[in-house]
Formats: sequence, structure tokens, C-alpha cells
Amino acid sequence: MKALQDLYPDDFAYCYGCGRLNAHGLHVKSEWQDGESVARFQPASYHMALPGFVYGGLIASLIDCHAMATAAGASMQATGATPGVDPTPRFVTASLQVDYLRPTPLGPELVLRSRAIEVGERKVVVAVTLHAADAECARGRVVAVRMPSAMRAPGA
Amino acid sequence: MKALQDLYPDDFAYCYGCGRLNAHGLHVKSEWQDGESVARFQPASYHMALPGFVYGGLIASLIDCHAMATAAGASMQATGATPGVDPTPRFVTASLQVDYLRPTPLGPELVLRSRAIEVGERKVVVAVTLHAADAECARGRVVAVRMPSAMRAPGA
Repeated sequence: MKALQDLYPDDFAYCYGCGRLNAHGLHVKSEWQDGESVARFQPASYHMALPGFVYGGLIASLIDCHAMATAAGASMQATGATPGVDPTPRFVTASLQVDYLRPTPLGPELVLRSRAIEVGERKVVVAVTLHAADAECARGRVVAVRMPSAMRAPGA
Repeated sequence: MKALQDLYPDDFAYCYGCGRLNAHGLHVKSEWQDGESVARFQPASYHMALPGFVYGGLIASLIDCHAMATAAGASMQATGATPGVDPTPRFVTASLQVDYLRPTPLGPELVLRSRAIEVGERKVVVAVTLHAADAECARGRVVAVRMPSAMRAPGA
């Protein structure tokens, strides 16, 4: 089984957060596991807010990309497709809410888990948790919508 | 008058989003202007969500750092200090809400404006708008709190 982002069509694989074809990006990868999805990310030493702590904007970015993949996986499951095997549809973020529960230590791998809490035809709402060294450090709630036609390349 | 981030104490100037001492960072700079603060940012070509559009995680990062500076400026003003002249106190993000109103075109400079809508001793709530080419593309609401002592370096 592949990461959900590895199954985005090539035209939509340039996202700075999760696109496999973006040479400068973060390359977030989300694995579908029994109705939830999991991503692991190792921050770089410069991804800091203050010395010793992870930058909140990175946390928001990870939650965002991971939630889009989860929304796609949940939407696929609802229509009989297989997340991690069939092509992943591209969702975009309508709104992103991140609560920073405690300072996130810089060093340990970050683990994001998420689950769709509402799956509509066009809109999926996703809840995300982010842990570092087994402590829950941040929580997200993300509203994802199917990519609007205004964002498609001509002819796509 | 200096950017608010240029007046963070050195120990707190390593933020990936806005620290002047982070060599890899975004270097967001917010100018205090008559009770609001303004930041301008030119995304790189690789800061994309899809070809032609700005990555939402970058937008969240800009809103986050700009809001922390605005919270500090409003807090300074409330206590008689001068934002952009006196040292800027460090706030951290308790929660971040971003609404993506429309796809943000990649190319034009992004302009963020923000204002504190609630100023407490410990907590400041900030509203942010983000425009590209004169269109409002995103809106943020950010809860900032004074940096907790658990995040200070020993002896700071």
C-alpha cells in the first residue's frame, strides 16, 4: 500500500507540504490504516519556534496536508475505492483550526493521526492529533472540499 | 521604526517564520502602523499548493507569525511602550484559525493586515486579513499568549 499523496495525479503532486514532485517541499506522507490515517514527520533543526520547540506554522502545515489526504481517503472509502491503492482525489482546505495544547519538543519524530468526522459529497471534516514523544501537543479540525474547477489546469 | 520581529530579544529570534537569526526561515516582518500591523511577503515559486496557487500552510505560517507580532504590539501599546522602537515581547500561539476564502494566486506579493480585537494581560486575540492583488484570499483569528516560562531557556 502506498502513501495517499503518492497517488495524487502528477498535475497535483507539486504541493509544498506533500507533493512528491516539489523538490523543496516537506513531503508529508499519510498512510491509510483501518479508517484512520497516520503520518510521521521528522522536523529539521531549523523548524523551530524558539530553541528546543517546533515551529507552530510547521505544525499547521503538517495538519493541513495530512487532513487533505485523510479527507480524500474517507471520500474514497465512501464510494468503494481503496485508499492507498486507487488514485487519490485532490481536496483543498476551506478552513483550518489548530489548538496548540503544549509546546512541541524539537527532536522526536512527530506522529499525526486523523479521522474524518463528517463525510459529504463535496465537503469532509477531519479531526487530527499530533503527538511528540507520546504526548499530545496539538489538535486540528480541518474542513476539506473537493478541488474547485477554478483551480484546475486548463483541460484537466 | 523597525519591524516588530527585529526587536525580539536575540534568544527569541530563531523562529522559522519570523526570526531574523534563522538562516533557513521565512523572515516575516511586521510594521506597526497606527494601531494595526502590516506585513508584506513574496512567496517563492515552490511555495505552491497546486501550480499557480499559494500553499495554504505558508498562509497559515504567515498569519501565525504576523499575529504574534501584532499581539506584542498591542500589548506594548496598552502598557505605554512604543511598538517598533522598544523591545518586542514574545507571544506564542494558543490557537490558530484560518479561513481560506478563495485560492490565493502565486505571483503577487501577499499583504497581511491585523489588529488586536481583545487585549488582556496574558492573552491577546488578533484578527488578520491576507490579500493578493487586492483580493482578500484568507482571514485568520489567532489567540496569542505571553510565552510561558516552560519555554524560556534556563536563566532567561
